[in-house]
Amino acid sequence: MTNLGYTPEEAIAAIATPLSPGAIGIVRTSGKGCIQLVANVFSRPKALVTAGANSLVYGWLLDGASKIDEVMVGVYKSPKSFTGEEMVEIYCHGGVSVVKAVLSLLLKNGFRQAERGEFTFRAYINGKTDLTRAEAVKEIIDSKTDVSRGRAAGRLAGNLFSEIDSIKKLIVDTLASIEVGIEYPEDEENISDTFDDSSLHEAIKRLSVLKDSWKSEKLYQDGARLVLCGKTNAGKSSLFNSLLKEDRAIVSDIEGTTRDFLESWVDFEGIPARLFDTAGLRSTQDKIEAAGVELTKDLSNDADIILYLADSTRGFEKDDLDFIKSRRDTPLVLVWNKCDDALSKPLPQNEDGLWREAVCISAKKGMGIANLVKVVKDILVNLGGKDSGLQAGLGSERQKKAVAEALERVEHSLFVAGEGYSLDAVVQDLEDSLDALGEITGEVTPDDVLASIFSNFCVGK
Amino acid sequence: MTNLGYTPEEAIAAIATPLSPGAIGIVRTSGKGCIQLVANVFSRPKALVTAGANSLVYGWLLDGASKIDEVMVGVYKSPKSFTGEEMVEIYCHGGVSVVKAVLSLLLKNGFRQAERGEFTFRAYINGKTDLTRAEAVKEIIDSKTDVSRGRAAGRLAGNLFSEIDSIKKLIVDTLASIEVGIEYPEDEENISDTFDDSSLHEAIKRLSVLKDSWKSEKLYQDGARLVLCGKTNAGKSSLFNSLLKEDRAIVSDIEGTTRDFLESWVDFEGIPARLFDTAGLRSTQDKIEAAGVELTKDLSNDADIILYLADSTRGFEKDDLDFIKSRRDTPLVLVWNKCDDALSKPLPQNEDGLWREAVCISAKKGMGIANLVKVVKDILVNLGGKDSGLQAGLGSERQKKAVAEALERVEHSLFVAGEGYSLDAVVQDLEDSLDALGEITGEVTPDDVLASIFSNFCVGK
Repeated sequence: MTNLGYTPEEAIAAIATPLSPGAIGIVRTSGKGCIQLVANVFSRPKALVTAGANSLVYGWLLDGASKIDEVMVGVYKSPKSFTGEEMVEIYCHGGVSVVKAVLSLLLKNGFRQAERGEFTFRAYINGKTDLTRAEAVKEIIDSKTDVSRGRAAGRLAGNLFSEIDSIKKLIVDTLASIEVGIEYPEDEENISDTFDDSSLHEAIKRLSVLKDSWKSEKLYQDGARLVLCGKTNAGKSSLFNSLLKEDRAIVSDIEGTTRDFLESWVDFEGIPARLFDTAGLRSTQDKIEAAGVELTKDLSNDADIILYLADSTRGFEKDDLDFIKSRRDTPLVLVWNKCDDALSKPLPQNEDGLWREAVCISAKKGMGIANLVKVVKDILVNLGGKDSGLQAGLGSERQKKAVAEALERVEHSLFVAGEGYSLDAVVQDLEDSLDALGEITGEVTPDDVLASIFSNFCVGK
Repeated sequence: MTNLGYTPEEAIAAIATPLSPGAIGIVRTSGKGCIQLVANVFSRPKALVTAGANSLVYGWLLDGASKIDEVMVGVYKSPKSFTGEEMVEIYCHGGVSVVKAVLSLLLKNGFRQAERGEFTFRAYINGKTDLTRAEAVKEIIDSKTDVSRGRAAGRLAGNLFSEIDSIKKLIVDTLASIEVGIEYPEDEENISDTFDDSSLHEAIKRLSVLKDSWKSEKLYQDGARLVLCGKTNAGKSSLFNSLLKEDRAIVSDIEGTTRDFLESWVDFEGIPARLFDTAGLRSTQDKIEAAGVELTKDLSNDADIILYLADSTRGFEKDDLDFIKSRRDTPLVLVWNKCDDALSKPLPQNEDGLWREAVCISAKKGMGIANLVKVVKDILVNLGGKDSGLQAGLGSERQKKAVAEALERVEHSLFVAGEGYSLDAVVQDLEDSLDALGEITGEVTPDDVLASIFSNFCVGK
């Protein structure tokens, strides 16, 4: 949202399905009068205008005398709709050209193109969703595996909202008891004795668990970065294909075939990983290829795990070792390829602890791939930290920052109480922590934060 | 459809939106009992089972205790649905993972995965659509430009069906009058005098127009193949980008950057064209690049138009001429690039009529591109033949073959009548022509033809 003005009198429209051929496409609209506006370009205007809430109406969209498409139209009445406003959803045929034609018909007839996330923004403004649920919508759409989707669905169902709400209650109750203390002050040495801080300890415990949950949630959401490295001809593209279970990379026996890099999502038993196939490492005179080799080094800098592939028939050479040594900070799996070859040399000793694990495979024959997947998955699970055991952890960096802020404020309140500062200081800390938590759910969220949340949504959501 | 058995008692399900992230995804179901089957995995089963026809119901899809997604469910009752059967459409969040999870939940709970085109096949079997309309659905989804979409929409609205129907009527009326002649035979010299053949002449005229319409319709549907050729560094990738109005090809000043070919759809004022950017023509030692040059030659063999790009600062060289001469059979536009350069040489004379048109441009500066587009469009319009002027022309090769067969039979009936064969022979021809026309609309279409029509559909349609 470039502009956070809420303009329900402006009817908005957007394509809500991906722009590639499919059986059905959806163009979605919301705002006052949108039923009438669609009726104006509909073959059965009366049927549409008189349709009940939550009903489907058949007809043709018309641009003057020209028939655009045969459609079903879903009618929603305020406040029983996703946005809380009057809404119309058009289910048309799923071609790129037809979906665009439907949208452009609406834009010519009183609708404004919706901004990113504007439907969800309207839902939020109208109290149909809080921010944790709104963010969960985006998380569900973007989720790469069933596990990450399931976690986002938990947040969409309100698990995170409830947890935040219940932590807030602990703090609010303490605040109430402190206010009694302020009104009827006793002459205590230590002001922490004037109120029961057990709820705050409980809040700290639960906020810590929430905060820690982000590491694992982030891994499930964003996925890990796995980078295949190794000298040219070590078999990287073959391994990439084996891991993808499809022939995406061009496999050839000519050095330097993969000039750019290939990238694909792989599901490691619920943990999504972006797998990068890179240009082989070698000195090269070719300008484009040299750029590819540099790119490989850059990619491996950002890797969560490096899979270093070596050709066991050539054995371990100095430049293999040089590269591996230069990547000491990243968990590295040595993948000893072509193990089935008669000329294969034995796996080198891991004397300096240069690699986390070593696995023998034959990429071409698919031998040892299952074991490699298991080894990688175990390292990934470790990277994610242990499961929080919560029904729903945090769903975004933004939420994590706010939880960290709330946690710090509650801890600070206990500190100032213990140090004998005034009760007012304690109250200030606790109020700040409630503000931080309110920002997560959207009760007290500043406009710029709202803008950045909704502008990350796709158009049509 | 691998199997043309119609099994309405089997509830079928399929994903109906493209498998990439979007705001909303659709999983569609049809068949007896499908409302109850969805209700079994729905948070508000009673609301779903008691919902009226054409209504939308809110709830969660559940896999036991696990929440899959928050959805709207569209309920359709037989016979008022697309397939004519009881139908349920699930509008869920648009992520790849969530849409797949919804389908897999249904498949675990009594639904069978729908085959390609099975929804439309059921609609056809239940008399909800004829074959011209069914094929138009696929044409709309696949259409590349507004013009091709508009033509398909005309067929979907029944224009082609009406035209075929009205031609059939001409033939049926003639048949009726002939049967009177058979029952009350007169002793005529020439049997063509025993019936009025004016309707048949009218039918022949209209069938010919229909048959000729396919050339232009095919161009609008399939698009033309435009292949960019020229020596390395002539500026093909820059021109490709200018035509696409986006930077899709990697533009670099290193010879041989484009090893494979790039391909994209371009809209030439309603006529879709597949534009191919190819590897530059040159002798090369590089195995992969040599393969690319061969591919260029193959592509240009299948081109509808070749855009031959030459660097005007280098001038016209023998190998340019050799290539152009080898492509005499294909309309070729000589594109004289870098015309704005001080070193640019004058456009060569078209002495042997080797090219259809020549255009001066500067691909880098976008100069002359609009003129090139116009020149190409005019050639394309010519390729398509003149517009039939019909509300709707033919939509498929299959339809064209059937129309050609019907036309031939009607013409033959007049021939046998003129030659004095028996009235029975005339009747046979006319009945054959009706069969051919009935095949187009689906009244008398053999199973293998049906199978091949529906197996070209996407799953979910």
